[in-house]
Amino acid sequence: MKIDFKTAMHRLQSAEDVLILAHANPDGDTLGAAYALLLALQDLGKRAKVVCADGVPERYRFLYVEPQDDFEEKYIVSVDVADRALLGKAVEESYGDRVDLSIDHHGTNRLFAKESYVEPDAASACEVVYLLLLSMNVHITKDIADRLYTGVSTDTGCFCYSNVTPRTFRIAADLMERGADAAGINVKMFETKKPGFLQLEQMVLQGMELYENGRISVLTISRAMLDKTGCKDEEIDAIVALSRQIEGVVIGITCKEKADGSWKVSVRTHEGADASRLCALFGGGGHKRAAGCSFDCSRDEAVRALLSAAPSFLP
Amino acid sequence: MKIDFKTAMHRLQSAEDVLILAHANPDGDTLGAAYALLLALQDLGKRAKVVCADGVPERYRFLYVEPQDDFEEKYIVSVDVADRALLGKAVEESYGDRVDLSIDHHGTNRLFAKESYVEPDAASACEVVYLLLLSMNVHITKDIADRLYTGVSTDTGCFCYSNVTPRTFRIAADLMERGADAAGINVKMFETKKPGFLQLEQMVLQGMELYENGRISVLTISRAMLDKTGCKDEEIDAIVALSRQIEGVVIGITCKEKADGSWKVSVRTHEGADASRLCALFGGGGHKRAAGCSFDCSRDEAVRALLSAAPSFLP
Repeated sequence: MKIDFKTAMHRLQSAEDVLILAHANPDGDTLGAAYALLLALQDLGKRAKVVCADGVPERYRFLYVEPQDDFEEKYIVSVDVADRALLGKAVEESYGDRVDLSIDHHGTNRLFAKESYVEPDAASACEVVYLLLLSMNVHITKDIADRLYTGVSTDTGCFCYSNVTPRTFRIAADLMERGADAAGINVKMFETKKPGFLQLEQMVLQGMELYENGRISVLTISRAMLDKTGCKDEEIDAIVALSRQIEGVVIGITCKEKADGSWKVSVRTHEGADASRLCALFGGGGHKRAAGCSFDCSRDEAVRALLSAAPSFLP
Repeated sequence: MKIDFKTAMHRLQSAEDVLILAHANPDGDTLGAAYALLLALQDLGKRAKVVCADGVPERYRFLYVEPQDDFEEKYIVSVDVADRALLGKAVEESYGDRVDLSIDHHGTNRLFAKESYVEPDAASACEVVYLLLLSMNVHITKDIADRLYTGVSTDTGCFCYSNVTPRTFRIAADLMERGADAAGINVKMFETKKPGFLQLEQMVLQGMELYENGRISVLTISRAMLDKTGCKDEEIDAIVALSRQIEGVVIGITCKEKADGSWKVSVRTHEGADASRLCALFGGGGHKRAAGCSFDCSRDEAVRALLSAAPSFLP
């Protein structure tokens, strides 16, 4: 059931012993939102803990907060999770049908939780969490501000994408004033390219395929490439972004081979092409400009399927 | 002579028949500020025109405003110009000693104008111009907002660099609300990579030199590389930025060969290394994190000179 902002705020205010769930393959937004909420609830005197199927990758380690004494959860909140399947298998099995509140910014949220507060116009889940914390009169400490800023900046490609609104900028300003180390976080998230990453980028570009007069790009990241360059799954965001940065490309498709041989597909689009609707055809979802889906078949079959549908989404 | 904000505002209010000078090798900030000021002065019923030694490159063509009837200038304003030499030879010869007002954000401004209003803490000249226009009660139209936003976003690497302050974010929010097409401008400025640019990036990375245990990088962009890839001078900003994005690099040096065989050096640094002070040793200047200087000798001699000084600037 969908609930409004005030109800979501009241739920958080009255919640005790809160388990916060981030999505699998975590990014800066789900982890930033989860740990910011954790710190806020702890500041309010509540017990809280965070669970993510894939833990906290090295890249996002600075967001991590050491757990306090364990407890049995009485209330479960998910952040930035559009579908219970995105919790990852183990977490979904344990908690998938027990989520009390989903706080999200995906218009494609499947409303899998008992109650869902979804703001599709928010650029990030952290933007939503910030507004909820403000309304709860939480004191936004530097530690909370750092985590929220990370989600706000990473989910907008550092304020570059079309999901940025004036509100996004004003929240970023507020978070800086509350101590967020914007410059330091940006250096970590956007300005630190490992030699292996640059190598991977070159490999991927060399294999780039263009279709529909260069309006659709397909990039492929195989396990072999990741192994050879030592790049980790969480480091490829910039390559996914690159897929639509090629001049003329409207739909950028990145196929990443997962450890089990299946393929995770990320779609990035420019105005006029709806990534979310394209991915929905294959059981995925997301936002208009950024969405994803998964394939259990071979890469070539996945690309064939995508290319049979994608051209009709071109403007 | 340095003047304060209010005096600068009064000068613009009482100026008539205004010539606005942008710096040579123009970027989004100098052109955005120049054309925003032009439109604002015209809205106030004044005559105004813009001069830039190198014209308006294709990349920034969307900032250009068709000139109205010509007139003889009675007041000359420069924007984003730290030194009269940066006006470019022809423009400097005509106007270098006649600039009435310099509006700038470079702490290294040489105060070459009769009066200078410099805000070293402003992330861009457009930030300063925006505040001046606001105080003059100029109606910020969509056309003005687009131009100011372009300077604000390009001079901050799309809000990524450490020059961003809460004020920068709030100005960006205001400009969006006044109609700036932030997403469209960002696509042009940050999300459109030509095939030739990607080729150039690979060439430059293959020639990357690292010194001082990888803390200093030197990238070289020769005329031959630009010719081969068809890249233009104004398209290399992203490569200059790349010089300090390599993991471990604190001082990133990019040497670009100019058409006359001399070398333009751009320095980008992380915290702890002052690019502006390093470049000042060679007659250049700029900001702490981004500065430049020029060399008339060979590339190797220039690099040798830079490397004799740069290590002492490492933190």
